[in-house]
Amino acid sequence: MLLEKLCLLTLTLGLVKSEYKYETKYFTVPLDHFGFQRTETFQLKYLVNEDFWDRGSGPIFFYTGNEGQIEVFAQHTGFMWEAAQEFNAKIVFAEHRYYGSSMPFGNVSLDNKHIGYLTSSQALADYADLLDYLQDHAVTPKYPVIAFGGSYGGMLAAYIRQKYPHLVAGAIAASAPVHMFPGMTPCDAYYRIVTASFKNDGSKHCVDNIRSSWSAIREFASNATNAEWLRKKWNLCDPLKNSSDVQQLLDFLQSSYETLAMVNYPFASDFLVPLPAYPVRVVCQYLNQTLNGTKLMEGIGKVLDTFTNYNKKTKCADYKKGSDYGNLDASGWDYQACTEMVMPMCTYGDQDMFEPHAWNFTEYSDECFKKFNVRPLPDIARVNYGGDRLQAASNIVFSNGLKDPWAGGGVFNTINESVETMLIIDAAHHLDLMPSSPADPSTVKMAREFHKQRIRRWIQKFRK
Amino acid sequence: MLLEKLCLLTLTLGLVKSEYKYETKYFTVPLDHFGFQRTETFQLKYLVNEDFWDRGSGPIFFYTGNEGQIEVFAQHTGFMWEAAQEFNAKIVFAEHRYYGSSMPFGNVSLDNKHIGYLTSSQALADYADLLDYLQDHAVTPKYPVIAFGGSYGGMLAAYIRQKYPHLVAGAIAASAPVHMFPGMTPCDAYYRIVTASFKNDGSKHCVDNIRSSWSAIREFASNATNAEWLRKKWNLCDPLKNSSDVQQLLDFLQSSYETLAMVNYPFASDFLVPLPAYPVRVVCQYLNQTLNGTKLMEGIGKVLDTFTNYNKKTKCADYKKGSDYGNLDASGWDYQACTEMVMPMCTYGDQDMFEPHAWNFTEYSDECFKKFNVRPLPDIARVNYGGDRLQAASNIVFSNGLKDPWAGGGVFNTINESVETMLIIDAAHHLDLMPSSPADPSTVKMAREFHKQRIRRWIQKFRK
Repeated sequence: MLLEKLCLLTLTLGLVKSEYKYETKYFTVPLDHFGFQRTETFQLKYLVNEDFWDRGSGPIFFYTGNEGQIEVFAQHTGFMWEAAQEFNAKIVFAEHRYYGSSMPFGNVSLDNKHIGYLTSSQALADYADLLDYLQDHAVTPKYPVIAFGGSYGGMLAAYIRQKYPHLVAGAIAASAPVHMFPGMTPCDAYYRIVTASFKNDGSKHCVDNIRSSWSAIREFASNATNAEWLRKKWNLCDPLKNSSDVQQLLDFLQSSYETLAMVNYPFASDFLVPLPAYPVRVVCQYLNQTLNGTKLMEGIGKVLDTFTNYNKKTKCADYKKGSDYGNLDASGWDYQACTEMVMPMCTYGDQDMFEPHAWNFTEYSDECFKKFNVRPLPDIARVNYGGDRLQAASNIVFSNGLKDPWAGGGVFNTINESVETMLIIDAAHHLDLMPSSPADPSTVKMAREFHKQRIRRWIQKFRK
Repeated sequence: MLLEKLCLLTLTLGLVKSEYKYETKYFTVPLDHFGFQRTETFQLKYLVNEDFWDRGSGPIFFYTGNEGQIEVFAQHTGFMWEAAQEFNAKIVFAEHRYYGSSMPFGNVSLDNKHIGYLTSSQALADYADLLDYLQDHAVTPKYPVIAFGGSYGGMLAAYIRQKYPHLVAGAIAASAPVHMFPGMTPCDAYYRIVTASFKNDGSKHCVDNIRSSWSAIREFASNATNAEWLRKKWNLCDPLKNSSDVQQLLDFLQSSYETLAMVNYPFASDFLVPLPAYPVRVVCQYLNQTLNGTKLMEGIGKVLDTFTNYNKKTKCADYKKGSDYGNLDASGWDYQACTEMVMPMCTYGDQDMFEPHAWNFTEYSDECFKKFNVRPLPDIARVNYGGDRLQAASNIVFSNGLKDPWAGGGVFNTINESVETMLIIDAAHHLDLMPSSPADPSTVKMAREFHKQRIRRWIQKFRK
């Protein structure tokens, strides 16, 4: 279950409408950039808009696509579109291999015998090749390139500046959990922030009620009559026939709270599930006093209803779908989490509102082996990308919203004079990259101004 | 023929005796660091000496092995051994995959179906993994690591600092032709320096005689009697039966001049061929006035004799062996030159003393395809490592000897406050990395002091 986390947001973003226009293009990349035994190539998709571009020397704003169809990121990274007009920039969104339509082996790309070239290094090398092509393979590139990305895309934006600084003048890495690797971050950091959001935007009662709900639901549902009551009252698509069903329901609830915290934006949105502004505050109103027994069940039921049926169009709460939304992308991320992206997660139940669940690498590894016939490599991301030793990097802004669970693995200390951090107190998951909204808190507006200042500085330095 | 150049020096070094002591160890590395489809591993050899090491916190001096058996580099990189005593450093020499005994597929590693994982990126990732292991996989590494390398090894030393600065505090990149890629350096730079060495250490006469010798030999040898005279006078192992034999002889001569320039050291050495101190000066004494006809043939014959038979133990001049010395390593480098390491070379015959020979990429590519079934990628090294755009790098010294033909592709302009260049007027190919000698010119002594100052600075910065 933990595997799908980062992916969740991608999918969530998928349903928002927007009207940014671009041309869809394809670029040939090798399957393997770091060896010559495999000679296959495939088409990497990228989106381009040159409406604002100063063709002589304007910068290229380059989104390092993450785990999902690139159109999703193009439509939701409003900050890039808005800033491009100011900077007369060309806009490029590059799709990550093995997601969307950038499939090296078509429909069977995610089969175990083909998926092995789904790695961050290969994706970065795809982007490097594409950037070289966009610069006409010039020994001295003409256009300053600014990389942008959110979440795993933010990690990639930072990484491409670290690994290919000759191709990328600077990077805005929003909500990039580059420290979420073994030994760098306490494994409960993510869940503590989910909990803090529910406490701060909701109340202590809200947190306490959720914390006590796990055993309460388990106990309540163990009685057949109660289980049927829950099915009806909570409008569940499937009955709770056994403890495995109940566990699935609890997992779905936990995942809902995480999503609510991640997308706890100041405006109503129709992400994965349509939600009101400040959804955490909204759901917590049903849990703002100490609740027990049936009252607690009713309260949680209202939270569930808000999450699954805010627009009143959902037939029933489909708790069995978990975080597998039938999208190929999810499977791709699971593989990455089972190879390079080993991010320990745990709960203790005290500073977080969840049932205690230890991080067990062996169990995790066995699950990966069963699923993909691979063993995760807990050191590989640190060895490759530096973990928390980024002193030699330059021209990166790491921004994190304090309301964002992923901030738990973010960079908060300024590393050096040009690797800076931007803490956005009021923001959830990479709010700073989203289109501006009248409801934006001043802190996120300031963050966007900060980003633009730094982008200006990097471009000036490039031109010197 | 051009393919073997960089390799030549490696092989040359192979025959020098020395008495540095080390322990030979092996470390398991994956065949493919950047994908998970191939799951093979193999043993990478590395050499260790801890005699001088301050085990608490002493630095690790790490040689990024290049194209050859690692023992060769360990025995000839005397500067590392001497400096290690001053710095209380642990000494590690890591062997490059597909050379020496670090063969992923044993005896058949260099077969076309196995050789594809011979790439600089994979080699750097091997070294990164080994460094992580030497640091006990610590999230915060304990020991500052200084990378050293000469020639292609110098490129790797710079590259590992560029790509893995969290693992390497700084790099001494000696005689590293990182700019010897398409579009960065005039293709005749290498041969112009060979020629300048023969002019400066020899004379204008020396250069003019060599320049006129090519057509003179060709014409002279076209007559059967003369050809037989040459076989006897020049002590050739094989007769000159046709123009192809003559071409092989000319290629061998050209290669001899290059080698003489590269190893034009201030002390006698028994490299590939035993040579006196300042061998260019020595051979030019036979060509220091305008020579024609038989006199010219006699002069060139003496140069050939010095190169092939200085110790008077060689039976005959084996001009047909070319630069293929029957060592597996040569083949490995040829493959690298046919994939990533595309270094354009040409002669014009005016500012150099050779017959004009244009750089023809198509011809080069066809040769590679015929040999390895691969096409060289002229952009890949620049895209991957930055070419001449190294502004974002840090803590590297690029040293070059002005007598070294490879300096033609070296870095000469200081890039920034911590990527500095050290020009050694009197030095041939990475003389600064060699054991100190009473014959060393003061400039190379100064260069070594400069290296040590910078190493000290990098170590201090690491410990801050």
